Amino acid sequence: MLSQKLSIPKGTRDFDPETVTKRNYIIQSIKTIFEKYGFQPIETPSMENLSVLTGKYGEEGEQLIFKILNSGDFVKEISLSDFELGYKKITQSISEKALRYDLTVPFARYVVMHKNQIIFPFRRYQIQPVWRADRPQKGRYREFYQCDADVIGTESLICEAEIIWMINEAMEQLGIKNHSIKINNRKILSSIVERIGMPGKETDFCVAIDKLEKTGIDSVISELKSKGFTDLAIASLFPILEIKGTPAEKLVALKKQLEKSETGSKGILEIETVLQYVEAGSATISNLEFDLTLARGLHYYTGCIFEIKANDISIGSIGGGGRYDNLTGVFGEPGLSGVGISFGIDRIFDVMQELNLFPQQFKNFATLLICCMDKSSENFCLKLLYHLRKSGINSEMYPDIVKIKKQLEYADRKKIPYALIVGTDEIQSGLLTLKNMQTGVQLRLCESELVKKINDELSHQQI
Amino acid sequence: MLSQKLSIPKGTRDFDPETVTKRNYIIQSIKTIFEKYGFQPIETPSMENLSVLTGKYGEEGEQLIFKILNSGDFVKEISLSDFELGYKKITQSISEKALRYDLTVPFARYVVMHKNQIIFPFRRYQIQPVWRADRPQKGRYREFYQCDADVIGTESLICEAEIIWMINEAMEQLGIKNHSIKINNRKILSSIVERIGMPGKETDFCVAIDKLEKTGIDSVISELKSKGFTDLAIASLFPILEIKGTPAEKLVALKKQLEKSETGSKGILEIETVLQYVEAGSATISNLEFDLTLARGLHYYTGCIFEIKANDISIGSIGGGGRYDNLTGVFGEPGLSGVGISFGIDRIFDVMQELNLFPQQFKNFATLLICCMDKSSENFCLKLLYHLRKSGINSEMYPDIVKIKKQLEYADRKKIPYALIVGTDEIQSGLLTLKNMQTGVQLRLCESELVKKINDELSHQQI
Repeated sequence: MLSQKLSIPKGTRDFDPETVTKRNYIIQSIKTIFEKYGFQPIETPSMENLSVLTGKYGEEGEQLIFKILNSGDFVKEISLSDFELGYKKITQSISEKALRYDLTVPFARYVVMHKNQIIFPFRRYQIQPVWRADRPQKGRYREFYQCDADVIGTESLICEAEIIWMINEAMEQLGIKNHSIKINNRKILSSIVERIGMPGKETDFCVAIDKLEKTGIDSVISELKSKGFTDLAIASLFPILEIKGTPAEKLVALKKQLEKSETGSKGILEIETVLQYVEAGSATISNLEFDLTLARGLHYYTGCIFEIKANDISIGSIGGGGRYDNLTGVFGEPGLSGVGISFGIDRIFDVMQELNLFPQQFKNFATLLICCMDKSSENFCLKLLYHLRKSGINSEMYPDIVKIKKQLEYADRKKIPYALIVGTDEIQSGLLTLKNMQTGVQLRLCESELVKKINDELSHQQI
Repeated sequence: MLSQKLSIPKGTRDFDPETVTKRNYIIQSIKTIFEKYGFQPIETPSMENLSVLTGKYGEEGEQLIFKILNSGDFVKEISLSDFELGYKKITQSISEKALRYDLTVPFARYVVMHKNQIIFPFRRYQIQPVWRADRPQKGRYREFYQCDADVIGTESLICEAEIIWMINEAMEQLGIKNHSIKINNRKILSSIVERIGMPGKETDFCVAIDKLEKTGIDSVISELKSKGFTDLAIASLFPILEIKGTPAEKLVALKKQLEKSETGSKGILEIETVLQYVEAGSATISNLEFDLTLARGLHYYTGCIFEIKANDISIGSIGGGGRYDNLTGVFGEPGLSGVGISFGIDRIFDVMQELNLFPQQFKNFATLLICCMDKSSENFCLKLLYHLRKSGINSEMYPDIVKIKKQLEYADRKKIPYALIVGTDEIQSGLLTLKNMQTGVQLRLCESELVKKINDELSHQQI
C-alpha cells in the first residue's frame, strides 16, 4: 500500500503530541475537580451487548450505533429468508455487540449489575470515548470523549448545587472566564405545557424550545405548530418566556403564572432550594442564569437541567446535564434518582484553542536536549543524561553524532527550551554551554551548577 | 430487561473505582518515566480502515480482528454469488473498518501519514486499549491496554540503553524489585540458525525457542523436529544454549562459537555496545540478563530484543520489545529503523496486586466526609464544605439527613479517612468532632484548626 493512499476512517482523528497534551490538560483539570468533590472513577468496556443498547436512544440514535461483526463464520447464521426482511433482521444474526453510544446507558447497566457492591449515594465519574456513526462535520466526530459525573441514589438538591460549583470551578480552572451556567427545571416546563393547554406534549415542546437560541423564534413557532400546538397555546406561551431579570426576580414572576400547578410549584421550589444551597457555600455565582427556554433534548430528565455556554465563541453548549428519576428502571431497577453533568471535551478544546487559553510550555515535554558533539564524548553525555533525569529534569540526548545545527533545529521544533552543548573541548575545560532556545542566550557553566540553574529558570517559566 | 440477565461481552471488564485508581497509578507512573525520557504522547483512532490492518498479523492474528459492520443498509452490497465464496468474501462487502489489534501497526501508519510534520528521530509513546477476539482466559482479555514507547528514525544503540534504564526505573517506581530484564539479539539468533546448518529457518526457530521457559526443552525439540530441524542441527544447538555466566562471560564464549558469521559478530557487537552504554550512564544493572533463548514471537524484530519478568510470580513476561528495521516499509516508507518497548498493564496489575504493592490510601479519593446531623445545620455544612475544597482537601458531605451510623458506614466503606460530625450543638459550641475512621479516635476542634490538622495528619499517611 502506498503512503498517499493511507487514511483513517472518516470522522476519526490522529492526535499529535501537542494536541494530546492539551486534551489531557483539560481532562486532568476536570478530573481533579471531580475528585475534589468526592467522585470516584469507573470504566466500562468499549463494547456492550446489543441488547443493552437497543431501545435506549430512539429510532434515530439507534441507527448511529456502530455494530461489531461476530467472529468466525457468521454466514452460517443467516438464512436466505432473512434477506427478505432486510438488513436490520440480518444484523441481529451477525452482530451481538456494539460500541457504546454514550456513557449514560453503560452507567445505568453498571449500577444495576453491581448494585450489591456499590456504596450509595454513588458518586462516580467516567471519562472515556464513545462512538456514533453520525455524519461528520466541523466539531462533530465519530469517536469522541465524554466526561461525565453523576450522583445516583439520592434526591438531595445539594447535589445540584455541587454541580453548579463544579462547573464554575472547572471554567475558572481552564480560564474560560466569560461563560454562562444556565439552569431550568423540567417540572416547570411540564407545567408550562399544561398551562398553555397542551398537556402530554412535553417532549415535543422541549425538543422545539431547545432550538430557540440556535434557530430563532419563528422556526420554533412553526415546529410547535407542526406538532399540533394551537395558535392560542403558542400565544399564551410568550408572556411566560418573556419573563426577564435576575433568577430571584424571574422566580417571583413565574410563581404568579404557575401558582395553580402542583408540578410547577415543585419545580420552582427546587430551583429556589438549589440557588439557596449554591449561595450558602459560596458567594453568589454571577454567571448563573435561570433560563426558561433551556430544555435539553434528552427524554430522561425529570428535574433541574443545566447547560454551560462559552460566551465569546459561537459553538453551542460546552456541557450540560440534569436530574433523572428513573435511569435504571429500564434494566429492572426503578426508584433510583440521580443527577449528572457532562463536559464536552472536544468543544472545550476548540474554545480554549480559539481564545488562546492553553499554556505555551508543557511540563511533560523535555526540558533539555544534550547535543553530543563527538563520539568520544558519548559516555560523558550519557552519565550526565542519567543524572539529569534522576534529578527530575525531563531530558533527551540527540542519539546520533550530527552537526550542531541539526541538533538545535530538533530542539527548536520539539519546543525543548534548553540545549546543552557537550564536546571534547567542553569536557576538558569543565564548562558546558547551556543555550536558552527562546532567547538565544548562551551560558557557560560547570556540571554542578546545571541542575540548579535549570530549576531556577523553570520555576519562572513553566506552567 | 431484568437485571439478572444483564451482562457484558465475554473477555471484557467493568472496573470499579479502586481498580481504575490502581490501574491509573501504574499508567501514570510509566507515563511520567516516558516523559522524563523525552517521549511524547500520540493517540490514534480506535478504528482503522481494514486495508491498513489486513496482511499485518498473519492468518491467525487476522482472524482475531474485530470488524465493524458498515452503517446503513449493508445488504445492498452483498450479491448472492458472494455467499458461495464464504464469509470472508462477504466481510469485505459489509465491513470496511475494524478495531485496532495493537498499537504498532497504527503507529507505523501514523508515521507514514504524518512524516512531513514529524520531527525525527521521533520519540513517541501511546497508551490506549486494543481489541482481540481471542478466547478469553485468566489474564487474557478481549479489550486491554497497550503501553508502548518507540524511537523511530535512528539506528543509535543509545536508544536500546535508554530503554533498559526506563524498564529499570519503571520497576523500581512500581516496587517490583525482584525482576529480570532479558536481552538478546535477533542477529545472534539468525547466525545460530545458520551455524547449526538450518539457514532460512529463523522464524520457526524463534517461535519454538521462545517457548523454552514455558513448555520445557522436550517440547521445543519436538517442535523443531516437526519444522524440519535435523537431529544433528538440534544436537549442535545445545553447546550454544548452555553457555552460562554474566553477560560479559557469555559474550566471550559466544564470540568463539559465532566468529565466522558476519551477522553473528554484528549482533554480539550490538549487545556489547548497549551494555557499555547502559553502564556509562548508571551503575551496572544487576538484574540485566543476556539470555540466548529469548526470541520474542514477532516477525519484525531485526536487532536487540528485550523482555521483562517479575520473578516472584509465575505469569510470563510483563513487558517486552526490540529493534525493527522496516516497520513502515509495508506502507511504502522503507529505511526507517526504530526500537520500542511495551509494558503489559494488565499483568503488571496482577503482579502488584498479588505482591500487595499498591498504596493503601489514594490521594484522589475523598479525605473527609461531613456528616450533617440536622436540616438547620445544612447551610453551615455547605459553607464549610466549600471552604475545605478551596483549601485543597477532597471532601464530601452526606447529601441526606440520615442517622450518624449510616453516614459513618458510608465513610468506612468508601475508605474516607476522616468524618466530621456537625449538628446544632457543635455549631453552637464552636467545636466540631473530627473522627479518624481508622483509629476511631475523636477530636474536638474549632473550624479554623480543621484544615491544618488534616493536612498535618495526611502528610504522614497518604501516598
